[in-house]
Amino acid sequence: MFILTLLFLGLNEGELKMSEDKPENPSKSDQVVFIGNKPFMNYVTGVVMQFTTQGANEVVVKARGRFISRAVDVVEVARNRFLEGQVDLKAPEGIKVGSEEFENKEGKQIRVSFVEITLVKK
Amino acid sequence: MFILTLLFLGLNEGELKMSEDKPENPSKSDQVVFIGNKPFMNYVTGVVMQFTTQGANEVVVKARGRFISRAVDVVEVARNRFLEGQVDLKAPEGIKVGSEEFENKEGKQIRVSFVEITLVKK
Repeated sequence: MFILTLLFLGLNEGELKMSEDKPENPSKSDQVVFIGNKPFMNYVTGVVMQFTTQGANEVVVKARGRFISRAVDVVEVARNRFLEGQVDLKAPEGIKVGSEEFENKEGKQIRVSFVEITLVKK
Repeated sequence: MFILTLLFLGLNEGELKMSEDKPENPSKSDQVVFIGNKPFMNYVTGVVMQFTTQGANEVVVKARGRFISRAVDVVEVARNRFLEGQVDLKAPEGIKVGSEEFENKEGKQIRVSFVEITLVKK
């Protein structure tokens, strides 16, 4: 029971973080889920709950570097298993790729790729 | 010198493989580069050479599972560094994501995500 509670809190925490991403936007049509190295299902649940309990019309799944593969997995599991028939990839151009340069701690220029995948309610 | 030759052969080998992907298609407008775990630059060179020495108008970079992140990196390095101003992501819908189910050696159903990114000559 304790573990279950922790699990639940963990998910809520992730969810709060996602909502905080755009605090200036009170509408629920522009939610963002950043993919990192938390347990895989946290992100799937995050996406699913945005649509089901938070009333989002659009959810953007973002990831950088090696988490890009994971972002695609999250999107695929969410839309094919948990939200089957309820959401679509936004068309056209629901998927963006690009890269950003930034300076790391050692002062070296680093280039990192990113992906942004937008799901919309049908 | 020997190592350089090997390197060169290695690249040629990769390139041949790519061309063999659609042996029934004699046109050069539909080349495919599959991303795997060879050295990163092999794939970048593969993409660049399709456009520069093979005269391709379109190159599709495909990857599955954990190689998806790598595919995005290959595309970004090819188009921003080596082919700057020469190629674009195909628009709209130059990027596809999806998933396939198949049976692994143990008879278990496995789902794997894939990505297909299409670059076109400007």
